[in-house]
Amino acid sequence: MKKGLFITFEGPDGSGKTTVSKAIYEKLVSLGYDCIYTREPGGIEIAEEIRDIILNPKNTAMDYRTEALLYAASRAQHLAEKILPALKEKKIIICDRFVDSSLAYQGYARGLGIEEVYQINRFAIGQHFPDKTIFLDIHEGLGLNRVNHRGNKDRLDAESLNFHQLVKEGYRIVCDKYKDRMICIDASLELEQVIQQAFEAVMGIIHEVE
Amino acid sequence: MKKGLFITFEGPDGSGKTTVSKAIYEKLVSLGYDCIYTREPGGIEIAEEIRDIILNPKNTAMDYRTEALLYAASRAQHLAEKILPALKEKKIIICDRFVDSSLAYQGYARGLGIEEVYQINRFAIGQHFPDKTIFLDIHEGLGLNRVNHRGNKDRLDAESLNFHQLVKEGYRIVCDKYKDRMICIDASLELEQVIQQAFEAVMGIIHEVE
Repeated sequence: MKKGLFITFEGPDGSGKTTVSKAIYEKLVSLGYDCIYTREPGGIEIAEEIRDIILNPKNTAMDYRTEALLYAASRAQHLAEKILPALKEKKIIICDRFVDSSLAYQGYARGLGIEEVYQINRFAIGQHFPDKTIFLDIHEGLGLNRVNHRGNKDRLDAESLNFHQLVKEGYRIVCDKYKDRMICIDASLELEQVIQQAFEAVMGIIHEVE
Repeated sequence: MKKGLFITFEGPDGSGKTTVSKAIYEKLVSLGYDCIYTREPGGIEIAEEIRDIILNPKNTAMDYRTEALLYAASRAQHLAEKILPALKEKKIIICDRFVDSSLAYQGYARGLGIEEVYQINRFAIGQHFPDKTIFLDIHEGLGLNRVNHRGNKDRLDAESLNFHQLVKEGYRIVCDKYKDRMICIDASLELEQVIQQAFEAVMGIIHEVE
């Protein structure tokens, strides 16, 4: 690798991001690539502490702006402690959710404004946007249906169908805004097909910098 | 009172902000004004949890951007849960430190940029800047000397004299930027004189909205 690669996976709840991104990571490792898998808070102690505040179901009185700033704070720390050092070592970073989640969830679905949430994330991450983002596109009803079959719902999972529809709309706007960075994959296909398409997309990105 | 009043006290560590602002609060209460005293995190549970992360001496690896975003997050919650409801009830709010502390400490002394830190605080507090700010101006050596005589130093108190000098310079820029809002008082005077000057300034502000 001539340089490191920072690849994120995005999509609404239940789109299969975690399953797909982990499968891609394992395929890359089996091919011998120097690769790390991470997601916020990424095992970074400060970011874990921040995450605990955000996801504590007791904190129902949390102001939406507080929530957005906490996500940005957690992201800044995760970037500084884990992603940037890995990029410096020319590794491939596979990251489950990053800045686009905040734009779709806090910026659009919470109604804070995509541009305003972009600005605080710009402060948090500077120039370090992902090189490419795999977006798993899914019908909102299907995503929510998958989430409802999980145990231990956190505070965000407990939101209404309406919120999830807004997240989906938010992601559409974000995908449009960052066309050059986004690779959209139809996540309503069979899982193996989704993984295969995502894998081909990631290999395409890697071949460009090898 | 025709409307609520939001008055903040600012100044470098050891400038006497807490002593002076509490004395002013007590004088106002004794005069029968409907007044609250607060400081971040203001007894707001979410903000207290955020504060614990910022001031934990173990968190030495905290990225400066993370720190600035955490202060902004704590401020957003303190504002939403405590300051705005009190303003709505036409109370006088006496607040020890607010947005200007972040501009001086994180924006200038940490080198993140006053304008950049202003932007994330603008996101956190919207239009709700203080009506007036009493700035306690002090020679940096004197302030630090006072702090060194305290017990239980937190992470910020343990910073070097150089950092405190930068904070002082940062405050000078902030005072200049917000001339119309700032009332500067020489805090190297005797404590009783400082309190008297601050009290007269605050009564001047109150008389304008009575």
